Amino acid sequence: MKALMLGAAAALLASTAVQAQMKPEEMVETRQAGYQFMSWNMGKIKAQVIDGKEPFDQAKVAAAADVIAAIANSGMGSLFSPDTTTEQLGDKTRLKPEFFQNLDEAGRIGKQFNTAANQLASVAKSGDQAAIKKAFGDVGASCKSCHDKFRAD
Amino acid sequence: MKALMLGAAAALLASTAVQAQMKPEEMVETRQAGYQFMSWNMGKIKAQVIDGKEPFDQAKVAAAADVIAAIANSGMGSLFSPDTTTEQLGDKTRLKPEFFQNLDEAGRIGKQFNTAANQLASVAKSGDQAAIKKAFGDVGASCKSCHDKFRAD
Repeated sequence: MKALMLGAAAALLASTAVQAQMKPEEMVETRQAGYQFMSWNMGKIKAQVIDGKEPFDQAKVAAAADVIAAIANSGMGSLFSPDTTTEQLGDKTRLKPEFFQNLDEAGRIGKQFNTAANQLASVAKSGDQAAIKKAFGDVGASCKSCHDKFRAD
Repeated sequence: MKALMLGAAAALLASTAVQAQMKPEEMVETRQAGYQFMSWNMGKIKAQVIDGKEPFDQAKVAAAADVIAAIANSGMGSLFSPDTTTEQLGDKTRLKPEFFQNLDEAGRIGKQFNTAANQLASVAKSGDQAAIKKAFGDVGASCKSCHDKFRAD
């Protein structure tokens, strides 16, 4: 368990180091762009599969799920460094400093999110609406899990 | 040719109508988020394949190319409506009103961009660096083509 925790933390810090050349503000803007674009695509799936506000269009749901998975798989961990929290940047970000005191937990949630996003993309290709609904819920739950722990109100 | 032009324009306007419920500012922010996140991923490929500033890592290049293709395929046309140009929104956007007077041209460039982005994702999976370099250049050229015509300085 200790090794697993250290492993996740080390992976997160290693990926952080790669993007050391980005300014803190750039990291924040880039990760926010990723989340905003994922959110738009989550909204499209929600409107079609959960709320029924728009007719179900399998190709559009699959395209939206592909965006979420691709962004989730893009190595966003490298956009999180300890100098990019509310402590240094005030209201430019909502990332609590606690994130870096709980890197094992952050890494675990991040991994859950990736798994859920890949599952959503996979079932969206199949077009099975019940499976899409379930996978969409799992993605949303992993988003919320991180927000509850590490995002300022 | 006329039919083709009308076809592209009609497709663009139809996709615009779907997102009629978004506010103009939201459309601008969402499309900017998509472009910014694509730009980050273009930068990663450039550093590895064009500039050689970072060692070539096929998995990372493929992940970055997947982001660009997924965003390109996400129906961004729906984030462009005639009330979201510099004319209405000043410096909140760089989209020139000319875009909507040349929808056939805009549609043609958009289609080129999609084709190039999908090609980049395809060759990135193969790991052939020469092919990646060529496809990366084609994506960049289609970005520039739209910027030159429809983006304010």
